[in-house]
Amino acid sequence: MRNLTVSLGERSYPIHIGPGILNRGSTLLSHIDSNQVMVVTNDKVAPLYLDKLTPLLEGKLVDSLILPDGEQHKTMESAMLVFDALLARKFNRNAHLIALGGGVIGDLTGFAAACYQRGVPFVQIPTTLLAQVDSSVGGKTAVNHPRGKNMIGAFHQPKCVIADLSTLDTLDDRELSAGLAEVVKYGLIRDESFFLWLEEHMEALLRRDPEALGYAIERSCVNKAEVVAADERESGERATLNLGHTFGHAIETGLGYGEILHGEAVAIGICQAADLSRRQGWLGNEDVERIASLLRRARLPTVPPAKLGTEDFLRHMAVDKKNLEGRIRLILLERIGKACLPMGVDVGLLRATLDEYGRA
Amino acid sequence: MRNLTVSLGERSYPIHIGPGILNRGSTLLSHIDSNQVMVVTNDKVAPLYLDKLTPLLEGKLVDSLILPDGEQHKTMESAMLVFDALLARKFNRNAHLIALGGGVIGDLTGFAAACYQRGVPFVQIPTTLLAQVDSSVGGKTAVNHPRGKNMIGAFHQPKCVIADLSTLDTLDDRELSAGLAEVVKYGLIRDESFFLWLEEHMEALLRRDPEALGYAIERSCVNKAEVVAADERESGERATLNLGHTFGHAIETGLGYGEILHGEAVAIGICQAADLSRRQGWLGNEDVERIASLLRRARLPTVPPAKLGTEDFLRHMAVDKKNLEGRIRLILLERIGKACLPMGVDVGLLRATLDEYGRA
Repeated sequence: MRNLTVSLGERSYPIHIGPGILNRGSTLLSHIDSNQVMVVTNDKVAPLYLDKLTPLLEGKLVDSLILPDGEQHKTMESAMLVFDALLARKFNRNAHLIALGGGVIGDLTGFAAACYQRGVPFVQIPTTLLAQVDSSVGGKTAVNHPRGKNMIGAFHQPKCVIADLSTLDTLDDRELSAGLAEVVKYGLIRDESFFLWLEEHMEALLRRDPEALGYAIERSCVNKAEVVAADERESGERATLNLGHTFGHAIETGLGYGEILHGEAVAIGICQAADLSRRQGWLGNEDVERIASLLRRARLPTVPPAKLGTEDFLRHMAVDKKNLEGRIRLILLERIGKACLPMGVDVGLLRATLDEYGRA
Repeated sequence: MRNLTVSLGERSYPIHIGPGILNRGSTLLSHIDSNQVMVVTNDKVAPLYLDKLTPLLEGKLVDSLILPDGEQHKTMESAMLVFDALLARKFNRNAHLIALGGGVIGDLTGFAAACYQRGVPFVQIPTTLLAQVDSSVGGKTAVNHPRGKNMIGAFHQPKCVIADLSTLDTLDDRELSAGLAEVVKYGLIRDESFFLWLEEHMEALLRRDPEALGYAIERSCVNKAEVVAADERESGERATLNLGHTFGHAIETGLGYGEILHGEAVAIGICQAADLSRRQGWLGNEDVERIASLLRRARLPTVPPAKLGTEDFLRHMAVDKKNLEGRIRLILLERIGKACLPMGVDVGLLRATLDEYGRA
């Protein structure tokens, strides 16, 4: 088992990574200090893992809430279902929540935990690659609003993250690829040698080689943990984790939730951010192509759906959280392995990128 | 102008108390670092003060949301209206919210500010006595759930509190009295000499003598600020601020929101807590009568509505946030001027108190 720590003073917590670690109940139990446990999961994950999880909590008052699968259910209405379930059981402010599922379940459960009785502890058990390398780590929780993704949320750190590699065996190929978009992102924003490693090991990752997956997840989490420890509430460096996300959120919002996976939208957004970085004079043509090539090898889309034009992007990007007083701020790349956050992006260059991708 | 500080490190903030201070825009403006301001208020307060407030923010993009008045509107649905308004204006994560109103508006606006884009700053402008002495200070924000009051919320400190005594001129007598319940509470839990002062000055407060009101508000805020500074997230001493509130919440929940004012329910709850403290052997009969007498002089109810019996109380108290693993924890009084939080209250004694008050 690989173990690392997200260092946040009193709010520090461990990440455990390994195959089959969920079957060892002691890892989980050591982080549950309550007799009341509510497992929140979805109808895709529950049949696979819920019956394995609950016996590990024997002796405790355990209830579960099974939500429909999909980003379109990451809503306040779903969060209200969690509150309803907690209150129906009269769970108190020492109750623990467990998020068993992918990023949607993790973000939603974390948000519910942040708000229930002004905050109860929760544990992340991410069952998708994307959640294991990104959304389960760092304490960002949220639900979506019809006008924008993650617009309602909280910073609320989990008590621990348990990433059982065995849960990836049941992940479909498309979701595995979606997770790889975020893995590639870490290489791009701050870890050039990891990017090189990914160029050499993409096929091993796609065939789910356990050693390669374990290494990629650990290295992604190490990168994320360092960034979060340095800037928990995203006043600076943490924003670089959003490489490709402003474009990506516009794609998700423009298509409506559920049409495209988050990681797929991020892959396209990374390509657009790379193209814009080229127009700023920072990346060369060969860098942009190298990035797109690696993402294609991960079986990810690299151009937006034809139905989204430049004006659609501009409209949806204008409400993104990363905008300061009307100007558009975007995470770009100075080079492969180093992200930057310029104070304001030239809208002409941005339009050129969007037009280029609109013709694709 | 009286000024004091809630000392919470990086999250410290000032409380300004005085007559007419809202007309001096400089006090407010010095705390608004954004060009985007959303004022949240209700249909009772808006006609009185909204048109005075907005000119003070000249040059900024100011919008307002006017909600219906009343505790029954302190809901997630109302919070969603705030999010809708913020997103309709494309307000970003630097936007500031202003809560202009009583405790309901303050709690709701604070909760919306805590969650909007994972947290934006907000300013409290409390316009009721209850909000000025209690709910606007300390960062507890929340909305109600049909199964319990304040069950969904966050700790989110304001940037400042501006308590303009002139706004109390338009407060109706019933709401003034409701605020006095919380004022009396501070004397009871930690400030015996303030309790004595209140016994001497209750009539001055009721006739809204500005000097007496200013002093009572300042002394209440000093007490609250000290408690909050010592225990921001209510792991210990802060719970004593809930004297009478577990009973009070049961009354509010049992009657349905909007039937009784929060302060009125707290006044009844304080009497019940005093009675239970007597049964524990801590207060004498004369103490209990002295407390009830002061509350009656403040024109507050001291016995619960006849329709709520012992079983209603027990049912509603069981989901209160202050319960630990099924036992009922209640704030009681060791003496006038000193609260305590016994580990578990004897349910027999609690029933005796509830039965006594049920017969009243």
